Amino acid sequence: MNRIQSLFGIQYPVIQAGMIWCSGWELASTVSNAGGLGILGAGSMYPEVLREQIKKCQAATDRPFAVNIPLLYPSIEEHIASVIELGVPIVFTSAGNPATWTERLQSHGIKVVHVVSSVKFALKAESAGVDAVVAEGFEAGGHNGREETTTLCLVPAVADALKVPVIAAGGIGDARSTLAAFALGAEGVQLGSRFVATPESSAHQAFKDRVVDAGEGSTRLSLKALTPVRLLDNSFARQVAAAEAAGESPEALQALLGRGRAKKGMFEGDMEAGELEIGQVSGQIRQLVPAAEIVQELVREYELLTQGMADQRFHWK
Amino acid sequence: MNRIQSLFGIQYPVIQAGMIWCSGWELASTVSNAGGLGILGAGSMYPEVLREQIKKCQAATDRPFAVNIPLLYPSIEEHIASVIELGVPIVFTSAGNPATWTERLQSHGIKVVHVVSSVKFALKAESAGVDAVVAEGFEAGGHNGREETTTLCLVPAVADALKVPVIAAGGIGDARSTLAAFALGAEGVQLGSRFVATPESSAHQAFKDRVVDAGEGSTRLSLKALTPVRLLDNSFARQVAAAEAAGESPEALQALLGRGRAKKGMFEGDMEAGELEIGQVSGQIRQLVPAAEIVQELVREYELLTQGMADQRFHWK
Repeated sequence: MNRIQSLFGIQYPVIQAGMIWCSGWELASTVSNAGGLGILGAGSMYPEVLREQIKKCQAATDRPFAVNIPLLYPSIEEHIASVIELGVPIVFTSAGNPATWTERLQSHGIKVVHVVSSVKFALKAESAGVDAVVAEGFEAGGHNGREETTTLCLVPAVADALKVPVIAAGGIGDARSTLAAFALGAEGVQLGSRFVATPESSAHQAFKDRVVDAGEGSTRLSLKALTPVRLLDNSFARQVAAAEAAGESPEALQALLGRGRAKKGMFEGDMEAGELEIGQVSGQIRQLVPAAEIVQELVREYELLTQGMADQRFHWK
Repeated sequence: MNRIQSLFGIQYPVIQAGMIWCSGWELASTVSNAGGLGILGAGSMYPEVLREQIKKCQAATDRPFAVNIPLLYPSIEEHIASVIELGVPIVFTSAGNPATWTERLQSHGIKVVHVVSSVKFALKAESAGVDAVVAEGFEAGGHNGREETTTLCLVPAVADALKVPVIAAGGIGDARSTLAAFALGAEGVQLGSRFVATPESSAHQAFKDRVVDAGEGSTRLSLKALTPVRLLDNSFARQVAAAEAAGESPEALQALLGRGRAKKGMFEGDMEAGELEIGQVSGQIRQLVPAAEIVQELVREYELLTQGMADQRFHWK
């Protein structure tokens, strides 16, 4: 048992990322019931929706689960009040200053984990007193760091710089990448894209199908002049690429993005005008798999891999 | 002993990348003498220079070494003739069609390895009959793939698709990333940036110092409208970034790049006007280390890591 397992009180250090429009109570409770850590993605939920989702998740599992709260969420005070009042044991914060809410959450016994994409922000998070960090590399879906540091380069640098445990995210989809993350110094892995492609995710079926269809080069880090985000190729993503190649201003890009595109794409299933956020590892996803099976298969194959470290392939003698 | 060790006849599956302006006979022979595989970077050598370098390398080591030949090199026939005539045992080809020269080289008993950045090109290389491939991710220095697939996502995908063994490149700098690469399915690792920062590399001292000074976010994949290349931040790289943000045409970018910038930067030491190609892992390099020590330390720490796989951190029970 490592520090991430102890911190969260979970069987396996396998975490399902909190993702807007994709990770509601059904997915989160399934992952937690399978021995991992499920996370509700509160960034796309109104305050009353989050409260309802927390209650449903609590009814569906008696194991720990978490809520991901982007710190720039407009009604953040309400989200913070909800997780405290409803007794959520773990909160993952992202996209904002961890100094603002960490102590308040911890004073209610909540474990706080902050998502970072650089050593610089990892050190800030540690100074703010977080219990762990997620180090998320360039290959991850959704919003992403400006330095474009990949998981392979980011995780060892963060693990060297911090005392608190590190969870690796970005490019993790199976036991091989999980073992790679552990070799780099992580004590847990967070998978996003893989859990989008499950029957339990709340993503629109058309988006799940697109994730399964995605191949090599199907995603690209886009909108770097605003907040960088990894998008799956579609009409909208190509419009963005053309605008960027033409040197359009941030204001013009913002106007092109508009409002509500992520919901339109990932939740409502508009595969051309919608914004489809997904990681590079989607290129390796070949089918929808029930979320509990993903956890079970990953754990089984990870055990085989670590036992098999005595194999010829790993040894140079 | 794995397939890469057997193929090359080397003690450790640790390969020093063939790099323009940085990897001459002194570096290559040192790495080969230390039990790895050293590579001469022929892309920056005139035909007579390559012949001289091969002879000096042969005089300095009786172990196998290789030559890296970019297939778009203008006088490629002369380079090919030289490696055959002088009995070089291994050739790494890159940047071009592996179907053109692989059979010819192999008919002279030369092992051929092709560098790829996608599964698509890996399959083409295998069809061309290569003995192994280098799968090089987005974080690598120098020229790089358009898909921007990171090493973490690329290596398992290539290992799944191919029968020939895979060498991982991009983001590899130490034993941790080496074990990560092996977990992903590689049977060898290729390190570039780490070997630039050695007394034996032929890079200018000012460039070596800059590599040591590099930190998080110091490199960026640039010139994507021409051939993507990862550059270390300096005046030239910032000029390129400004031109790209303004939507300049490929022709304008080509004019800005001009000719001879890589030599000017990496070999002649012009740290502002020169083109400085280096990988993201430069951010983790803190000092110059003799090339033989890099190999020895990597092997020692890799053995400790693989033995330590019984550690609590790796096991979830």
